[in-house]
Amino acid sequence: MLSLHRRNFLKLSGLTVLPGIMPAQFFQAARSNGFLPGEPVVKFFYDGDILDPAGYLTELQKILDRAAFKQDYYGQGGVVAALEKKFEEVTGKEKAIFMPSGTMANQLAIAVLSAEKTKVFVQDNSHVYRDEADAAQSVFQKRLMPLAKTGAYFTADQLQKAVAALDSEEVFKSGIGAVSIENPVRRADGKMVPLEEIKAISAWCRSQDISLHLDGARIHMAAAWSGIPVKEYASHFDTVYISLYKYLGASAGAILCGDKKVIDKMPHLIKIHGGNMFGNWLNAAMALDRLNNIDERLGQAKQRAEILFAALNKMTGLTVSHIPGGTNIYLFSIAREVDARKLQQELNTRYNIRIAPPANNQLRLTVNDTILLRDTTYLVEAFRSSLRHASS
Amino acid sequence: MLSLHRRNFLKLSGLTVLPGIMPAQFFQAARSNGFLPGEPVVKFFYDGDILDPAGYLTELQKILDRAAFKQDYYGQGGVVAALEKKFEEVTGKEKAIFMPSGTMANQLAIAVLSAEKTKVFVQDNSHVYRDEADAAQSVFQKRLMPLAKTGAYFTADQLQKAVAALDSEEVFKSGIGAVSIENPVRRADGKMVPLEEIKAISAWCRSQDISLHLDGARIHMAAAWSGIPVKEYASHFDTVYISLYKYLGASAGAILCGDKKVIDKMPHLIKIHGGNMFGNWLNAAMALDRLNNIDERLGQAKQRAEILFAALNKMTGLTVSHIPGGTNIYLFSIAREVDARKLQQELNTRYNIRIAPPANNQLRLTVNDTILLRDTTYLVEAFRSSLRHASS
Amino acid sequence: MLSLHRRNFLKLSGLTVLPGIMPAQFFQAARSNGFLPGEPVVKFFYDGDILDPAGYLTELQKILDRAAFKQDYYGQGGVVAALEKKFEEVTGKEKAIFMPSGTMANQLAIAVLSAEKTKVFVQDNSHVYRDEADAAQSVFQKRLMPLAKTGAYFTADQLQKAVAALDSEEVFKSGIGAVSIENPVRRADGKMVPLEEIKAISAWCRSQDISLHLDGARIHMAAAWSGIPVKEYASHFDTVYISLYKYLGASAGAILCGDKKVIDKMPHLIKIHGGNMFGNWLNAAMALDRLNNIDERLGQAKQRAEILFAALNKMTGLTVSHIPGGTNIYLFSIAREVDARKLQQELNTRYNIRIAPPANNQLRLTVNDTILLRDTTYLVEAFRSSLRHASS
Amino acid sequence: MLSLHRRNFLKLSGLTVLPGIMPAQFFQAARSNGFLPGEPVVKFFYDGDILDPAGYLTELQKILDRAAFKQDYYGQGGVVAALEKKFEEVTGKEKAIFMPSGTMANQLAIAVLSAEKTKVFVQDNSHVYRDEADAAQSVFQKRLMPLAKTGAYFTADQLQKAVAALDSEEVFKSGIGAVSIENPVRRADGKMVPLEEIKAISAWCRSQDISLHLDGARIHMAAAWSGIPVKEYASHFDTVYISLYKYLGASAGAILCGDKKVIDKMPHLIKIHGGNMFGNWLNAAMALDRLNNIDERLGQAKQRAEILFAALNKMTGLTVSHIPGGTNIYLFSIAREVDARKLQQELNTRYNIRIAPPANNQLRLTVNDTILLRDTTYLVEAFRSSLRHASS
Repeated sequence: MLSLHRRNFLKLSGLTVLPGIMPAQFFQAARSNGFLPGEPVVKFFYDGDILDPAGYLTELQKILDRAAFKQDYYGQGGVVAALEKKFEEVTGKEKAIFMPSGTMANQLAIAVLSAEKTKVFVQDNSHVYRDEADAAQSVFQKRLMPLAKTGAYFTADQLQKAVAALDSEEVFKSGIGAVSIENPVRRADGKMVPLEEIKAISAWCRSQDISLHLDGARIHMAAAWSGIPVKEYASHFDTVYISLYKYLGASAGAILCGDKKVIDKMPHLIKIHGGNMFGNWLNAAMALDRLNNIDERLGQAKQRAEILFAALNKMTGLTVSHIPGGTNIYLFSIAREVDARKLQQELNTRYNIRIAPPANNQLRLTVNDTILLRDTTYLVEAFRSSLRHASS
Repeated sequence: MLSLHRRNFLKLSGLTVLPGIMPAQFFQAARSNGFLPGEPVVKFFYDGDILDPAGYLTELQKILDRAAFKQDYYGQGGVVAALEKKFEEVTGKEKAIFMPSGTMANQLAIAVLSAEKTKVFVQDNSHVYRDEADAAQSVFQKRLMPLAKTGAYFTADQLQKAVAALDSEEVFKSGIGAVSIENPVRRADGKMVPLEEIKAISAWCRSQDISLHLDGARIHMAAAWSGIPVKEYASHFDTVYISLYKYLGASAGAILCGDKKVIDKMPHLIKIHGGNMFGNWLNAAMALDRLNNIDERLGQAKQRAEILFAALNKMTGLTVSHIPGGTNIYLFSIAREVDARKLQQELNTRYNIRIAPPANNQLRLTVNDTILLRDTTYLVEAFRSSLRHASS
Repeated sequence: MLSLHRRNFLKLSGLTVLPGIMPAQFFQAARSNGFLPGEPVVKFFYDGDILDPAGYLTELQKILDRAAFKQDYYGQGGVVAALEKKFEEVTGKEKAIFMPSGTMANQLAIAVLSAEKTKVFVQDNSHVYRDEADAAQSVFQKRLMPLAKTGAYFTADQLQKAVAALDSEEVFKSGIGAVSIENPVRRADGKMVPLEEIKAISAWCRSQDISLHLDGARIHMAAAWSGIPVKEYASHFDTVYISLYKYLGASAGAILCGDKKVIDKMPHLIKIHGGNMFGNWLNAAMALDRLNNIDERLGQAKQRAEILFAALNKMTGLTVSHIPGGTNIYLFSIAREVDARKLQQELNTRYNIRIAPPANNQLRLTVNDTILLRDTTYLVEAFRSSLRHASS
Repeated sequence: MLSLHRRNFLKLSGLTVLPGIMPAQFFQAARSNGFLPGEPVVKFFYDGDILDPAGYLTELQKILDRAAFKQDYYGQGGVVAALEKKFEEVTGKEKAIFMPSGTMANQLAIAVLSAEKTKVFVQDNSHVYRDEADAAQSVFQKRLMPLAKTGAYFTADQLQKAVAALDSEEVFKSGIGAVSIENPVRRADGKMVPLEEIKAISAWCRSQDISLHLDGARIHMAAAWSGIPVKEYASHFDTVYISLYKYLGASAGAILCGDKKVIDKMPHLIKIHGGNMFGNWLNAAMALDRLNNIDERLGQAKQRAEILFAALNKMTGLTVSHIPGGTNIYLFSIAREVDARKLQQELNTRYNIRIAPPANNQLRLTVNDTILLRDTTYLVEAFRSSLRHASS
């Protein structure tokens, strides 16, 4: 049921965080000055904490105090260069470059990889196809070819068949420019593309001289839940984009990594599309700091979540299940006898634990590193106690 | 069976006439100096006769002798202006303009109608989507949205649902720029879009302020087989493209008709895309001559074909059936006992009647106005006699 | 004086033949059924005869009668292929391709040669810069960099300085994509670019890995007047465009020649820009026939003109002078005592010799191969007799 | 002399601060921990102070402490909305919108204003023409038409003549889309376009239905030196861009103001060009704070500079002169007898006053609001004392 009407359901439950239609009221209400002022807040939505101005400035000051960094000039030098260097290590790619947005990173990667060829294969529910406002067509003059109308990803076999079918479906050849894969897939509940499928697609693409791009906005989530290092994922792609604000704490920004000859074309393209900003260090410094131990933190978050959810599953009236093939999103079902709204309220007001508003006693729990702010005992007790109050 | 594997079947049977991969050898062989030199040739393929140089020059000289016409200069004046005027009458549109190709006519119409909006709905098997080499995306920066993955056309209901679905499928709105309908549909055996569906689509589009384009490359075929005048079809669209060489005899060229304010933008667009040619009268003069009585000729061709096919259906071993919803394409099945190749050969060598080479004793008969070169008696006798020879 | 206000002067005198604003009335009047019906007409305007429908069909029939040719299908095969082959010989380039217009040939050549680089250097008064409706910028996303604000051409030195100046004038580098040279230059009275300058530009461009395009719409005129073969000119360029209708008699069309790897990209580009026409043989056949002996005919035309003009210069009241560095355009001054209008009229009505209407007793004589229709004696006598009548 | 070779001179003197080639070494050296730690630093270069990370965070924290503000989500709400509102007041325009860069603001403004027309008139030495990497041509498909090859601006008369000349220079009309004026002009030593000229241009443009854009990156500088309010300048334009980092302290960002119907098109365009960033408050909050009193501060800075420079002009060996028509840049000549390097050093090490390194005893003094950090007496004494030391 959920899978059939996922999008509408998400809308009703207030769980979707679609860019541009941020449920800001809810989000603000849940966070603003809390009920336990000064105490840490654990949030079961978003892929990471989104700091408010006070929090951001405090964090950045701490980072600066720990080790002074320098500002960049138009994206060059200083902490932006340091961030790029770090991402080169993380992804194993020759070169990394900072960009203002994931849309720019995805679009420029695809544009450069596909060069004068027109067709680019993507998942039907990918960010590139559904959330970039037709930039590929209207600015970069590409024809996106959606695959996997249902499901999170397409297989190597599906890709090959779609390419082969073009021979009979179309007479004029405009060229297969590139293939882009989003992993994990936001519009598919954070489901992952299996590594074996990636390998098969990559091997075939290389045999056909077709470039391959990874929209890895949240690739560290995939790494944490699959146990496969980011570098391993990246090795199968020509270019990799990773977001700086989803779980790396920056207020904005993106990184694109790839071969030097590809990335060297980016500064000019960033400039002509208006993305060359004077100072970018306010985002780069935050992301660099978080990047240093992101794998450990997400790994621990996953572990803690699993312990917590196992405990919840033992409580009468609560069921937490992992989305098959998924990453940090879990389905949380609350028995009919329980007042789910009250459960949410209790967690919020008494324990500074925020969960999304339930719809029909169901909701999603999105795990991120705020779970590390409290130990397991605290978390289990919080749910247990809240459940009790909500059941009476 | 045919419908499932239509395209591959067509390829095998040599019946497809896909632009750019003209089966020229076959075509030439079938026509060149025939077996009855000097006698008329009836052809059951193509939508009209494609004259060879000698035939073209002879025809054009006759036209000039009947009524002198003047050349154009860069598409202005002379017989080109006369042709445009005639098409304004035919379609009931304010203004018509000559263009070098149907691809240019379709693309410029869609580009101007959709303006700064990005999305354009089309049939999945339309010329715009499948046979224009991704021009819409790579030159005109549009996102084509294919509907009717199977079948010849989409309904008003399907269109509305697809538009409505975008609200949940995508967050950013790039705008519904236009809807384009091909009628009849070449890649669907010349099937027609029902007028009632066109009316419903048109009414809805107008209510939504969405422009509507008709790829009417062969719209006169639809008119002949449906009995609905071209002007009636055109009245439901903002722009209409009609080919000059499919059945109007020109060696090339297209006409686009529409409101003055739309067509007035075309000369500049034709120029910057390199389509502004010095002299175009060699095509315009031929098309204008044919256009004068095309409806009568195609109407008579249909009648004669129906009489002939009824007669064939009475002959043992031959079955001719009309494609449901179709125009001038008929399925021709020859009983296994008959040597179909011999039948084809007999018709060709003894009667100057050309049919496509049979595959598994099946082929398509495409009716055009060459059928008018012989009377019904001749045609029926030709088939009867050839069948006899091929059955022994 | 003339040079200073050339354009306005040309306008007043009705001599300019700017595409799109053809002085059709004058042109028609001068040609239509003449005063010596059936007799040949010598015309001192245009670069070649522009046949009316009757003339065109007669000519094409003659060509067909001499040696049968075949039609093309979408620009492939038949007489179009033959024409391309012939142009490969003429230019010494690997491959030639037919296109509907010179604007398309110039634009596609420049687009492909410059690839992802933005800047393209051109003459300020070139067709590419002034007569292609900003196609380079608005369709092909290039920045044209005009040189030689006055004069017909830029030197290698000027080009190098302009490129060098960019280093201090601009910070961001968008790349020098190509250099385009028009030769001869229509907007500069048909003046030529000296071969030595072309060689110097070409050598420098090759040393800098900058591609070089020749807009040789009328390159055979340059060849005839400079004595330098088209192949020699072409050898210094990567691509060469030559018009099919200026002096090759076709009603429209253009040829682009260059390396196979460049020309092989053209069919796709022609298609997506809407220039892929079904039949092109009506233009190709005429151009191919004329191309076979164009160099001889223009060479003889030049000789005959020189003899004629030498004779005119000996007549009291007439002065013909060659534009320095020019090709087939000559300045014709008529003494004040002579009734220049009457001179024009006499030539026209009594000798079927057409000259442009004089303005202030001055006009241009444009030499083309219609001069070969009459022998020198006839021509000299015609002018002498007409001058006598116009002087009395 | 200076004017003739300004650019090369600037390069040698290290005074130019061209985006992308920031003389970072010099800049860093001059600022980093100074010679009077903890004391304010007065800088005679740049249009405002560029804070280092520590300074930026301290400032932003102070701003937050004074009055809490909220973050934005994808540029919507919070302090970004507040900044936009404030700019609507400042410029008197209906609507303002935040963008990542001035290049994007200029390009999108021009693209929307000119719509489907191709030509856009600009100053030859404007940022749009010289410092935006040919974005107008290569991304936005415009043809920039440079005027005022020398000098800071073009007059209404020059504009009208250039437009009129097109009638004879070109046949095909691609349309005059917009006129863009940079004021003050960075590449012309910060010179201003006189208001009277702006009024004349604006009046003519409106009479011709041509849109007018103001690249007012530093328009507050013009306001301070001319005494004409920003709102008055803005009233003559359709759109106005103002930088957030030149003198408003932000690390990056730009504002574009204009009619609602123009600005309402921007979010989509920002998105498809990759400029839609998640959080922009770190820039918006700083700029908003500075914007509140920028006019007063720049006005006072001008006054203080005038007093200081008058005092300097009374000192033997020093000459400060205002660039005619200029804003905050002054020419500083030091007599040959004075050791100019030593003067610079003394000011730096003993008084925390930074001036650019002199070349041939000349340099530019750029006034900004850091001059307000010290009173006049201190400044005059600092120069007097340093001069004494440098003269001995």
